[in-house]
Amino acid sequence: MSNPSLLILAGDGIGPEVMAQVRRIIDWMGDKRGLKFDVSEDLVGGSAYDKHGVPLHDDTMAKAQEVDAVLLGAVGGPKYDDLDFSVKPERGLLRLRKEMDLYANLRPAQCFDALADFSSLKTDIVSGLDIMIVRELTGGVYFGEPRGIFEEGNERVGINTQRYTESEIERGARSAFELAMRRNKKLCSMEKANVMESGILWREVVTEVAKDYPEVELSHMYADNGAMQLVRAPKQFDVIYTDNLFGDILSDCAAMLTGSLGMLPSASLGAPMENGRPKALYEPVHGSAPDIAGKGIANPSACILSFAMALRYSFDQGAEADRLEAAVEKVLADGVRTADLMQAEGGTPASTSDMGDAILAAL
Amino acid sequence: MSNPSLLILAGDGIGPEVMAQVRRIIDWMGDKRGLKFDVSEDLVGGSAYDKHGVPLHDDTMAKAQEVDAVLLGAVGGPKYDDLDFSVKPERGLLRLRKEMDLYANLRPAQCFDALADFSSLKTDIVSGLDIMIVRELTGGVYFGEPRGIFEEGNERVGINTQRYTESEIERGARSAFELAMRRNKKLCSMEKANVMESGILWREVVTEVAKDYPEVELSHMYADNGAMQLVRAPKQFDVIYTDNLFGDILSDCAAMLTGSLGMLPSASLGAPMENGRPKALYEPVHGSAPDIAGKGIANPSACILSFAMALRYSFDQGAEADRLEAAVEKVLADGVRTADLMQAEGGTPASTSDMGDAILAAL
Ligand SMILES: CC(C)[C@H](C(=O)O)[C@@H](O)C(=O)O
Ligand SMILES: CC(C)[C@H](C(=O)O)[C@@H](O)C(=O)O
Repeated sequence: MSNPSLLILAGDGIGPEVMAQVRRIIDWMGDKRGLKFDVSEDLVGGSAYDKHGVPLHDDTMAKAQEVDAVLLGAVGGPKYDDLDFSVKPERGLLRLRKEMDLYANLRPAQCFDALADFSSLKTDIVSGLDIMIVRELTGGVYFGEPRGIFEEGNERVGINTQRYTESEIERGARSAFELAMRRNKKLCSMEKANVMESGILWREVVTEVAKDYPEVELSHMYADNGAMQLVRAPKQFDVIYTDNLFGDILSDCAAMLTGSLGMLPSASLGAPMENGRPKALYEPVHGSAPDIAGKGIANPSACILSFAMALRYSFDQGAEADRLEAAVEKVLADGVRTADLMQAEGGTPASTSDMGDAILAAL
Repeated sequence: MSNPSLLILAGDGIGPEVMAQVRRIIDWMGDKRGLKFDVSEDLVGGSAYDKHGVPLHDDTMAKAQEVDAVLLGAVGGPKYDDLDFSVKPERGLLRLRKEMDLYANLRPAQCFDALADFSSLKTDIVSGLDIMIVRELTGGVYFGEPRGIFEEGNERVGINTQRYTESEIERGARSAFELAMRRNKKLCSMEKANVMESGILWREVVTEVAKDYPEVELSHMYADNGAMQLVRAPKQFDVIYTDNLFGDILSDCAAMLTGSLGMLPSASLGAPMENGRPKALYEPVHGSAPDIAGKGIANPSACILSFAMALRYSFDQGAEADRLEAAVEKVLADGVRTADLMQAEGGTPASTSDMGDAILAAL
């Protein structure tokens, strides 16, 4: 049997730097744990645009469809700010999500014990925080038609369409309920059913799906209140299920509660392929951070933890994922700190590769 | 010359209780400061539905169009949760906003010195916080067509339309720039121009309007990053300008940073009427709080401060507004605390009317 395949799209900015550390972990898994992967690499975002004039080449897209999982670094940078909308780095990422049909975006917002002080929130409000946001990722206003800028009378009008079918809402809801079953059996669904008909349908469908998960305690919240409650008392949540646009904002809000964006991974999952594995793309929550790119100081943890999510969700290696996550936690507890984690109380300054060294040593 | 006119729509839940304290302030202004208003009252939300079968009667709508300013309490409650979308309490409020064409919603997020500890954020992150969010209030996905739940093949689809014309974006932007000129001359515009064409147009128009305000430092931020930055370091902002839906979420997020929702007012302003005053509606940011309604324990401060905003923006009584705001601050500094403000460090417990008494005494 052939090894499972991984496509690495390191992307722009700090993407290649943090991904280099993931490669070391992958190699270690092959050497020391007999977990071998067939790894290929390709371009996405600005780096793909520089070479091909598009932020994702068709060949890359085809490869992404074939592999068992994609690992992505980050896309974007000021160099590309003035590109036309259709070829901006983000379009490469959005094309991957859409064409791979990665409808369930899992964004854990977890507060690491050693870093609880880093939050702008009071330590007791966030210590031990462990939320999983499931964001619908292939529908809604991100992809709805009609869209564009049109002439109307003597002025222009910008239009986007929020659009959700029952089946789109349902399949994401099932992912969220399944996760809730494996966690604390609490699911909060967020929309604006008081203002938007798409939110009314959302609430109806989620309520219907809940009948298949009687053990899960379901609640509904308007998304504006959701933002408030995340800030006020985030530990009230276990799993949150919400749409593409609300999820974009609320998951970033939740991520920032932890105070350490450089630590947060994400998984984007689609339907199972023939081999039973879901289509999958894993990426850190942080962006390409052009201000620190090329300096070797970026924190590779979020990208490494994204690989841990790949081990868990794509390769059924939950124990190896736990082990890798524990190694990262140990390194934090030991006080190893990349620049983004350096604060008043000190710690051992670490470069990107020092952090990789420390995590490998902890493994 | 006749007195300026006020229409009071106390609404549901705690609305009538907090509005009763505003009435006392209005009477005081008439008696002691010679600032007389012609006050009328009417129904909105669930209470209007109970009487008329609609959350806003046409007669009430007509009155709202005629007066110099509307003061609104709050709408909604569990009793009305199962009503049809078209007659839900919120529709009354949305109709007022839309038909009065109240396009600029001013939501200050201000942290009162005496309450800085109440925030879930660290005190140094929020103490002295003073942001003004200008939310576009009559456009976007709240009102865009087509909208509804439709049959499509053998399933339903929920649709809403995000829609902004150049002139809609522009007039709100002018309000925001004008406010920035009177404050710290910094404006941050938030959208998702990396994903939505309506956001691209938004950014273009705001950039164009900025040319008329060369003294104002303009920045642009994606709304997801905006949510993060509000949580991370809110004091970086002065005025924020954003659309109806992003504004709904981001202003609630910002409000919760202050930790004391019971303190926050808002103003919704339209174009100047014949008498030069803007069409205007003032309301607290908090909702109808059905859980504590009827107990006489709600905090009337947000509603009283909304009246202060009316004095400032509708009646050119900036000095009286300052005086009223100072009275509220003094009462807080003196430790007078409604239930929502009671925390470990104590204070003098106050009912809704005790708080009214204290503010009147401070005046
Ligand atoms: C880069 C951008 C297109 C993307 C999004 O809006 O989805 C990002 O913010 C994210 O959350 O992954
Ligand atoms: C009550 C509701 C319709 C309203 C809104 O969504 O605008 C509220 O959340 C607000 O922000 O004033």
